[in-house]
Amino acid sequence: MPTLRRHDPGALFDTARAGDHAALARLLSLIERGGPTAREVAALAYRSPSMAYTVGLTGSPGAGKSTLTDRLIGLAKSGLPGTGSGSTGQVGVLAIDPSSPFSGGAILGDRVRMQSAALDDRVFIRSMATRGQLGGLAVAVPDAVRVLSAVGFPVVLIETVGVGQQEVEVASATDTTVVVVNPGWGDAIQANKAGLMEIGDVFVINKADRAGTRETHRDLDQMLELTELDGWRPPIVETVATTGDGVETAWSAIGDHRKYLIDHDRLAPLRRQRLERELRQVLVARVEERINSLQGSPDLQAVTGALAEGTLDPYAAADRLLGIMTAHPSEPTAPAGR
Amino acid sequence: MPTLRRHDPGALFDTARAGDHAALARLLSLIERGGPTAREVAALAYRSPSMAYTVGLTGSPGAGKSTLTDRLIGLAKSGLPGTGSGSTGQVGVLAIDPSSPFSGGAILGDRVRMQSAALDDRVFIRSMATRGQLGGLAVAVPDAVRVLSAVGFPVVLIETVGVGQQEVEVASATDTTVVVVNPGWGDAIQANKAGLMEIGDVFVINKADRAGTRETHRDLDQMLELTELDGWRPPIVETVATTGDGVETAWSAIGDHRKYLIDHDRLAPLRRQRLERELRQVLVARVEERINSLQGSPDLQAVTGALAEGTLDPYAAADRLLGIMTAHPSEPTAPAGR
Repeated sequence: MPTLRRHDPGALFDTARAGDHAALARLLSLIERGGPTAREVAALAYRSPSMAYTVGLTGSPGAGKSTLTDRLIGLAKSGLPGTGSGSTGQVGVLAIDPSSPFSGGAILGDRVRMQSAALDDRVFIRSMATRGQLGGLAVAVPDAVRVLSAVGFPVVLIETVGVGQQEVEVASATDTTVVVVNPGWGDAIQANKAGLMEIGDVFVINKADRAGTRETHRDLDQMLELTELDGWRPPIVETVATTGDGVETAWSAIGDHRKYLIDHDRLAPLRRQRLERELRQVLVARVEERINSLQGSPDLQAVTGALAEGTLDPYAAADRLLGIMTAHPSEPTAPAGR
Repeated sequence: MPTLRRHDPGALFDTARAGDHAALARLLSLIERGGPTAREVAALAYRSPSMAYTVGLTGSPGAGKSTLTDRLIGLAKSGLPGTGSGSTGQVGVLAIDPSSPFSGGAILGDRVRMQSAALDDRVFIRSMATRGQLGGLAVAVPDAVRVLSAVGFPVVLIETVGVGQQEVEVASATDTTVVVVNPGWGDAIQANKAGLMEIGDVFVINKADRAGTRETHRDLDQMLELTELDGWRPPIVETVATTGDGVETAWSAIGDHRKYLIDHDRLAPLRRQRLERELRQVLVARVEERINSLQGSPDLQAVTGALAEGTLDPYAAADRLLGIMTAHPSEPTAPAGR
């Protein structure tokens, strides 16, 4: 294996496309780290026209998402049902933990359960976190998906640890969002029920061999009745991920949703919408980045000084800073698109 | 009483300074509404050199914050203890409800308990929410405080409904932050204990006539031992707001914290820090505002079109938009400081 230069994204892409998972992991580390190199990697990935089909899984910690994901990986290798895609049999998995400041941290333990998958070189599993860089996961995850797409993965599963605001945002910024609950719901879900009803394209009641499954199913049904739907009625699937019961039905439901989006010309507009939301997040992150890069500069000191003295109000100060930032963009930018 | 032109902030200020609470309420409505007029009001207020001493109160719903605030109002009329300030005897109260889309909504019920205060024309009480405008409460509340300061209020109490992220941010962006808990803590506090330990300058155990007070006191003490403190050791005060027990001690503790900040030259740097944070929030809101004002413009359509086609990546697109926004600032700006 040739030695890879640490920061040559182009070479890393070539190696990753040839099936080298170490190179792919390095590309994702660069994305995770943020900054100019992340931008360069994302820009390169963006040139690739293909786009992986993304499936987000969210639900409270302990709902059994990892086990379910493990099972879905096995099915995803045969592609998404009802469509010809997925023929390369490659499956990418991003396990997102917004609370962990280090990648490969908290949820790596869960990954042990994915042993069988890890031994298969068509499967690439990666825990992702952000080290507090600007834009955070909302910017890093779409970039990571873009990298996996560019490298040839037709399907990417994105699993979050819990149902926090960031986690729900990440999981719902996918083509199909799966909300995983347990019989009896649980407290974390209870607090965000309405939010989860809004984002779910497929609902999975996992651990459906336990008491309370029927009630939870009825409860979900009733809540869906009350939810404004625009054409797609999210199916409710009961699974026992530990035994595999119902997992194929869940996978079919994901395929049905995909087919629905394609047949009704909804997939492209959905993705375009996501892209515009992402653009907005990148823009805000970029502005914050530039403020940071001004830190300690005479320009910024003059403005904050005037602010403290009361000769400038925060609005006028903000406008002055905006002017300064765009007159002297101090951050290197990605080479693509320039 | 002269008829006020709806949108003449200067005249409203003059009338409000003369003690007219209707004019003051109208100024705060303009702030709440956001946009160019809010900015004009804020800029006018900013010219006033005086700055009210701000006290934030946060804690779970039902902790008794409204009753406690009601009691504190009575004491605040005599000014802050240990200092000569507060001589006008005026007290401003902002009751913040981030979840309510309408001002005067959900927490107005609580205000009924403040009847005694409402009948006193030295006391001005206002519920505040934001109608979803950009920057939200993080921008609107400091502006509202600025208005109350400019009109002559020496003390402003800021009370939030709960301990959500926004509420904690607003309550902690004050000179003295009071965290109100109950014996046994309660679930909402439990989830955010560490965050609350960080922001509290004074801890109040309200409903201290109930069981579990001693345990909660000890618990708080132990957590403070574990918290990194830089000079000020937050006192823990037990109160029964309904009877008034301990409320004077709580008010003294607030006064002690203020004295500490002044004696150690910490108040000015603290406020400057807040101002810089606010500047950042205004800046981000301003950028989002400009993106919105570009909505539907040929410039934006060209960029999002190129983005969807893949000829521009999100980073390059963001940079192009930043350039467009600053070349043609389309929003009117505040007159001050220009």
